[in-house]
Amino acid sequence: VKLWGGRFEESVTDAVERFSESVSFDKELYRHDIAGSKAHASMLAHQGLITESDRDSILSGLDEIERRIRAGEFVWRQDREDVHMNIEAELTDLIGEPAKKLHTARSRNDQVVTDLRLWCREAIDRLLARIKQLQVSLVNLAIKNKGLIVPGYTHLQRAQPVLLQHLLLSYVEQLERDARRLMNCRDLMNFCPLGACALAGTGLPINRFMTSDALGFTGPLSNSIDAVSDRDFVLEFLSATSIIAIHLSRLGEEWVLWASEEFGFLTPSDSVSTGSSIMPQKKNPDPMELVRGKSARVVGNLVTLLVLCKGLPQAYNRDLQEDKEPLFDSVRTITGMLEVTTEFAQNITFNHARIQKALPAGHLDATTLADYLVKKGIPFRTSHDIVGRSVALCVSRNCQLLDLSLDELRSINPVFEDDVYEYLGVENSVEKFCSYGSTGSECVAEQINSWVSKLGISHP
Amino acid sequence: VKLWGGRFEESVTDAVERFSESVSFDKELYRHDIAGSKAHASMLAHQGLITESDRDSILSGLDEIERRIRAGEFVWRQDREDVHMNIEAELTDLIGEPAKKLHTARSRNDQVVTDLRLWCREAIDRLLARIKQLQVSLVNLAIKNKGLIVPGYTHLQRAQPVLLQHLLLSYVEQLERDARRLMNCRDLMNFCPLGACALAGTGLPINRFMTSDALGFTGPLSNSIDAVSDRDFVLEFLSATSIIAIHLSRLGEEWVLWASEEFGFLTPSDSVSTGSSIMPQKKNPDPMELVRGKSARVVGNLVTLLVLCKGLPQAYNRDLQEDKEPLFDSVRTITGMLEVTTEFAQNITFNHARIQKALPAGHLDATTLADYLVKKGIPFRTSHDIVGRSVALCVSRNCQLLDLSLDELRSINPVFEDDVYEYLGVENSVEKFCSYGSTGSECVAEQINSWVSKLGISHP
Amino acid sequence: VKLWGGRFEESVTDAVERFSESVSFDKELYRHDIAGSKAHASMLAHQGLITESDRDSILSGLDEIERRIRAGEFVWRQDREDVHMNIEAELTDLIGEPAKKLHTARSRNDQVVTDLRLWCREAIDRLLARIKQLQVSLVNLAIKNKGLIVPGYTHLQRAQPVLLQHLLLSYVEQLERDARRLMNCRDLMNFCPLGACALAGTGLPINRFMTSDALGFTGPLSNSIDAVSDRDFVLEFLSATSIIAIHLSRLGEEWVLWASEEFGFLTPSDSVSTGSSIMPQKKNPDPMELVRGKSARVVGNLVTLLVLCKGLPQAYNRDLQEDKEPLFDSVRTITGMLEVTTEFAQNITFNHARIQKALPAGHLDATTLADYLVKKGIPFRTSHDIVGRSVALCVSRNCQLLDLSLDELRSINPVFEDDVYEYLGVENSVEKFCSYGSTGSECVAEQINSWVSKLGISHP
Amino acid sequence: VKLWGGRFEESVTDAVERFSESVSFDKELYRHDIAGSKAHASMLAHQGLITESDRDSILSGLDEIERRIRAGEFVWRQDREDVHMNIEAELTDLIGEPAKKLHTARSRNDQVVTDLRLWCREAIDRLLARIKQLQVSLVNLAIKNKGLIVPGYTHLQRAQPVLLQHLLLSYVEQLERDARRLMNCRDLMNFCPLGACALAGTGLPINRFMTSDALGFTGPLSNSIDAVSDRDFVLEFLSATSIIAIHLSRLGEEWVLWASEEFGFLTPSDSVSTGSSIMPQKKNPDPMELVRGKSARVVGNLVTLLVLCKGLPQAYNRDLQEDKEPLFDSVRTITGMLEVTTEFAQNITFNHARIQKALPAGHLDATTLADYLVKKGIPFRTSHDIVGRSVALCVSRNCQLLDLSLDELRSINPVFEDDVYEYLGVENSVEKFCSYGSTGSECVAEQINSWVSKLGISHP
Repeated sequence: VKLWGGRFEESVTDAVERFSESVSFDKELYRHDIAGSKAHASMLAHQGLITESDRDSILSGLDEIERRIRAGEFVWRQDREDVHMNIEAELTDLIGEPAKKLHTARSRNDQVVTDLRLWCREAIDRLLARIKQLQVSLVNLAIKNKGLIVPGYTHLQRAQPVLLQHLLLSYVEQLERDARRLMNCRDLMNFCPLGACALAGTGLPINRFMTSDALGFTGPLSNSIDAVSDRDFVLEFLSATSIIAIHLSRLGEEWVLWASEEFGFLTPSDSVSTGSSIMPQKKNPDPMELVRGKSARVVGNLVTLLVLCKGLPQAYNRDLQEDKEPLFDSVRTITGMLEVTTEFAQNITFNHARIQKALPAGHLDATTLADYLVKKGIPFRTSHDIVGRSVALCVSRNCQLLDLSLDELRSINPVFEDDVYEYLGVENSVEKFCSYGSTGSECVAEQINSWVSKLGISHP
Repeated sequence: VKLWGGRFEESVTDAVERFSESVSFDKELYRHDIAGSKAHASMLAHQGLITESDRDSILSGLDEIERRIRAGEFVWRQDREDVHMNIEAELTDLIGEPAKKLHTARSRNDQVVTDLRLWCREAIDRLLARIKQLQVSLVNLAIKNKGLIVPGYTHLQRAQPVLLQHLLLSYVEQLERDARRLMNCRDLMNFCPLGACALAGTGLPINRFMTSDALGFTGPLSNSIDAVSDRDFVLEFLSATSIIAIHLSRLGEEWVLWASEEFGFLTPSDSVSTGSSIMPQKKNPDPMELVRGKSARVVGNLVTLLVLCKGLPQAYNRDLQEDKEPLFDSVRTITGMLEVTTEFAQNITFNHARIQKALPAGHLDATTLADYLVKKGIPFRTSHDIVGRSVALCVSRNCQLLDLSLDELRSINPVFEDDVYEYLGVENSVEKFCSYGSTGSECVAEQINSWVSKLGISHP
Repeated sequence: VKLWGGRFEESVTDAVERFSESVSFDKELYRHDIAGSKAHASMLAHQGLITESDRDSILSGLDEIERRIRAGEFVWRQDREDVHMNIEAELTDLIGEPAKKLHTARSRNDQVVTDLRLWCREAIDRLLARIKQLQVSLVNLAIKNKGLIVPGYTHLQRAQPVLLQHLLLSYVEQLERDARRLMNCRDLMNFCPLGACALAGTGLPINRFMTSDALGFTGPLSNSIDAVSDRDFVLEFLSATSIIAIHLSRLGEEWVLWASEEFGFLTPSDSVSTGSSIMPQKKNPDPMELVRGKSARVVGNLVTLLVLCKGLPQAYNRDLQEDKEPLFDSVRTITGMLEVTTEFAQNITFNHARIQKALPAGHLDATTLADYLVKKGIPFRTSHDIVGRSVALCVSRNCQLLDLSLDELRSINPVFEDDVYEYLGVENSVEKFCSYGSTGSECVAEQINSWVSKLGISHP
Repeated sequence: VKLWGGRFEESVTDAVERFSESVSFDKELYRHDIAGSKAHASMLAHQGLITESDRDSILSGLDEIERRIRAGEFVWRQDREDVHMNIEAELTDLIGEPAKKLHTARSRNDQVVTDLRLWCREAIDRLLARIKQLQVSLVNLAIKNKGLIVPGYTHLQRAQPVLLQHLLLSYVEQLERDARRLMNCRDLMNFCPLGACALAGTGLPINRFMTSDALGFTGPLSNSIDAVSDRDFVLEFLSATSIIAIHLSRLGEEWVLWASEEFGFLTPSDSVSTGSSIMPQKKNPDPMELVRGKSARVVGNLVTLLVLCKGLPQAYNRDLQEDKEPLFDSVRTITGMLEVTTEFAQNITFNHARIQKALPAGHLDATTLADYLVKKGIPFRTSHDIVGRSVALCVSRNCQLLDLSLDELRSINPVFEDDVYEYLGVENSVEKFCSYGSTGSECVAEQINSWVSKLGISHP
């Protein structure tokens, strides 16, 4: 019989029980639920609402339950609906009467959202560590490939030469903002709903500051209705994971492209590749395809939560039970995405020779040539036009800018002088970049150093 | 060692294996995978690509595997990646050499999408039955509440009186279109990809029409690249389930409203209600809240699939592995939503007395009064204005239109005559409706009859 | 003063008026609104609810209004809220008293949804024509490039050789299903809500079958509440456009890839490319990037509608006003996407020489070699392994399968014979494909013929 | 001819031009584009890259252009593609040669994202002001309704009595977090991309810190590829607006419910209500329905951006042009939602009499009664059960807990004493709440005071 059964004469149908139960997934919260209950019981005793002996029974009973769950000895019962009722009922089986006092000045409404905030806080801390790992891998990969010039793209067309280091650091920057977004989310959510009870608080003399402190929250939430109604912290967390997912999907796309025969810029090791059941020659960069693909479910989960919360009146509605699975799935997925991307980064080789051979194509030095003309005093728009015509000449001759003779260049515009050749060719071009944050080798070296120190990479 | 391992020297890392595996969820496809393999093996034998004895071994081996899976004796292995490899490898363990011929002229690319189409087809057939059950329940509920007038709302403001039957049938209509959408989806997806192999077809003399027939498809898909690349049938299916979910969320919202103290129009039985862990008086219509809430994940799953497929080049990309979980989850969720809504419909009581008592409020007969004036030859816009002023008079007096005397009415406009009272009051108002599809009692009776016969309800 | 002003003493604030108005976008419906009003007025006259002279005034007044709108002479007024009120109020200014009778037995609730269904029906017809244009362009492009072999990809890794024709037809197939989905949507939505009035129908003796016929609907909707409440036809339409958008995003991705320096398989003409404001050498395939990008808003619009409708109780709620802008935007966007993709298809050149030069890479003939072994009686799994080892040999020698000597092959497995060379090399490989729907040249020719005839392409 | 035309021989087709243009919407950025150009020109002059006279011409030319745009005298040209090219080309028309130097060390890639960050920063500042206005209105509304007790709901079932003030403050709390989320977003985005140029930086001696300072940014972005590639700040901003939208949709739902005949708790004034074209008695709370409905497009816009960015490789891709319309639309929509909700809050009356009359229903004091038993030493679970049985008795007698005699209560459990009646009835119940953040009147008064001071409300 349900714990809320007082006024009920009939139990729910099987279909309803199956449809309504949440223990199959919210048992994920068991550690946080037990931590919350322990803080609550200690506070109740401190306030004289239960005896010290009751408290001690409760605490040691909860310890035993936690042990059993960890050991796989605990039987989760669907008819006990959710993680809270399962644990409370088991506690009653275990210690008897004192267990019936645990739910004093508490409701499942504030209990579940306390658990959930604790869970999110812990999840964020873990994700922050995973993000840092990936950043470290990317910086290490950059260090390993010092000096390698690759084509920079816009519109997937070759644009300008960049140092691979520079490109890899662009992902490190994005991950840093991702981390910061998680920290902001953590700060904003780290307030304690416990004691908000069903929605209105309680008339019993509890101390919400005490439980809040015991659980490591910044303080209790100031409005009990708000405390049990809102899930904005989940929405914010899922938004933050969605942005990470989008970032990783872009890295995934890039590395899938680069691993293709046509690009041929990188080769994953066998340990992060898979083959084909029919085509014996295949070696596919599946992990990064899956990273790209799994971004979709993270976005889908965010949408689920937004749709879920839309148009619900205050305060708790049963709909909110549906907040957990998408959240758990997104955290699990993003964790896997970060982990596998890290492993991939540790197991790829950039094909220096092939990249270098491919570099001359695409007139990557054209903008540097335009800068040259600007330095000679030509307005940029005119420079752009002159270089445009030079490129057209190359296209017609199927050659590179470097291959044009000075006479040919001067036939387009007499401003060209002998020093123009110091600006042509991919290596010259990269060397010329000097603006802050640019791909110039000194600028990049500085950024690498800054990340090595910020991330605490010891022997770079 | 992986079945595609020929050219590989190293096996994948644990993290990659865990991240890439699909057997934990695609084992859901085992019956369809086995059915596909059996059709394939029979065709291979018929075409002389394997011997009849090979075929017989394969067929009986597959039967044994199916039996073991059903019996829970089959061990799914993560290192065997997916349902296909698990079954094929087990078959090899079981029957040896002939099993190695099963994958002739087949790839996992066409195999998985064949399985998935079979799965979807079956899922649609089951959903169609569930939809019909709910329609039957709604019609029965309507029949049980014949003659009950309820307020019809727009903007959640009382608008016009309607028969409850009429309102319930509006949901039956929506479900009918939902069913039709599923049937259209079924028709469009029921083509067979088997034999498309990796993406280009095969050079072996297979017969795709034979496998297509054996599996109950309309015919083979005409383009092998399309066959393995596209997931539009999943997108269409998830769109169709999303529309169902939206429809049910609206019914959920309505019934939650109606079960509130303030409306008080319906009472769910204990068997479809739940209580509160803190508030002993509560009796909540949780199943319908969850129906409303679970609509969110169905929408989220659709978004997942759309994001997944966006921007993928032809043909198969590993991203597509992610098509299954959202699909399975949506079908499971919609099935539960339909089932529980059916049970709810079977376990609610409309509170005739309370509804009747509440009916006078809201001037539900105002439009009927305007129609009266139109019949007297007043242009509608003028009628609308006259009734508007009559209502304003009621509001100021806190009375109903019915309570205004003829003199009062005539002081607003002299056109009113004694027969006006045949148009006032909720019962009179409902009786006046006569247009096709309207809430007039004859119109509704006709619709009820039509549904009773269409749904084959025996003793209505 | 608002047309619904009867009981109101104060007009709405400016901010509310601005926030609530819809005429700035729903004027898009003016032709359908006028058509609906004309059908309605004719029916009212036929039923004796207005005089023939009233009807004639209304019809010619509406004609004049339509003329003015087309001519840009009509002043849309925000204080008249929406397209319906703007037209009706203008009609009153124009013809006086008879105009006040037009809204007899009608509400904006049924009026707007009638307009919207007419609009959607027309939009679908136009999209069907656009889809066919694109199909024709793709088939023509295929015909122009007869015989061209390109790499077929899975996981963006080279997999098997395919005819470009085969690949282009895979998109034609997808578009055909897109068209069919639109037709199904059209069929299911083509029912007439007019006469459902506010939500309950009317007590006036109207003839809904007559207006339905006049407007080309299959019949009137059978339930007036359903008629004004539901927007499932918009959801279905937006789902169908989202699937088209996803299909086009994939083609966009493919062509952007193929236009890159690294693939170099196609060159768009200047007329469908753009340049860079800073990099003079750039020539970007922007239209296809935008096709890919604009798929996002089509998906976003679908989500908007799903979120909008979620959890609304019956019948009309003002929220539903928000159904139009996403719908209009999606149709406009998809139209542009289809149009521009058609133009792109008409303005690209496939670089035969470059493609042919690139073909040997990637061991595209490996599967054909496995088929060869199967024909020699080797079980497929064993064949796969043998070819895998052969490929590994090639990788170590940096050569093609074709370059291995018979001795080398036989050292891997003695089953190889001299005829193996008929199966190696891309041209041989393609020639071997023979299954229905495969890339074999006869199979593809058959498909081309079938599309030429189905699409009515005259001089292919 | 396009400004990037150098190597192009043909201009784009009309359809492509129409499809690709962005000036029709990105002109919204004109002020920010001009501000960016002025900062850039000043820096170029300071660095000696252009002369002071060039700079002066540019600055005054830009001033004149800004004047013309404000005055509506500027002709935006579609063939000039976007806001940047329109302004630069007009500048060239206006001041000639110097204008051609403005694009030195700049690309549209860094230019547009600089403009966009400036636009977002300003938009956030405006939204923060709007949020505060709404908070003030809600607090004022609370102050105006001091002492009013309303039912608190969970599952839309009556749960516990709460002060209306407490409920209104729960929305103020949510808005406060919304504001904080926007501030975090502002902090994280307030870095300057200018000088990142196309993607690699530049070889010209620019000073990025100088432009960053001049434009009020915290500093320049440290990686030029990241600077032009990423749109995470838009994603974060749209996430933040989506959460606001969800919050407002919930308030909208609540107020729509409360304005219904059945609840009857609030009446909006005519100035924020609308009527019906057919039902003369209707007075609809349309603004709040639209607030609820418009939340959908804000969510849809977020999805658009997520889909857009998914799977794009670095760096700029033309897809990103599509980032603006959803962003502009969401900001415009949220602004309207906040504004109209503020007006609604200022124009509603809570119906004290009606609410008070309705309060006895629903056994709102049941939990207080359970607290009473706890205070008497009964374990909570037992208390819950005792009260459950007391409520069951009330239900069977159709009375309130308050109506039960002490004997009746004692027949359920002998612990009840005379003082129980101090805990029964809604007023007693509310008075008992005393926990921090609860609905007790002192707790709430404290919160009101705190908000009055935090929001600087002068004469509350």
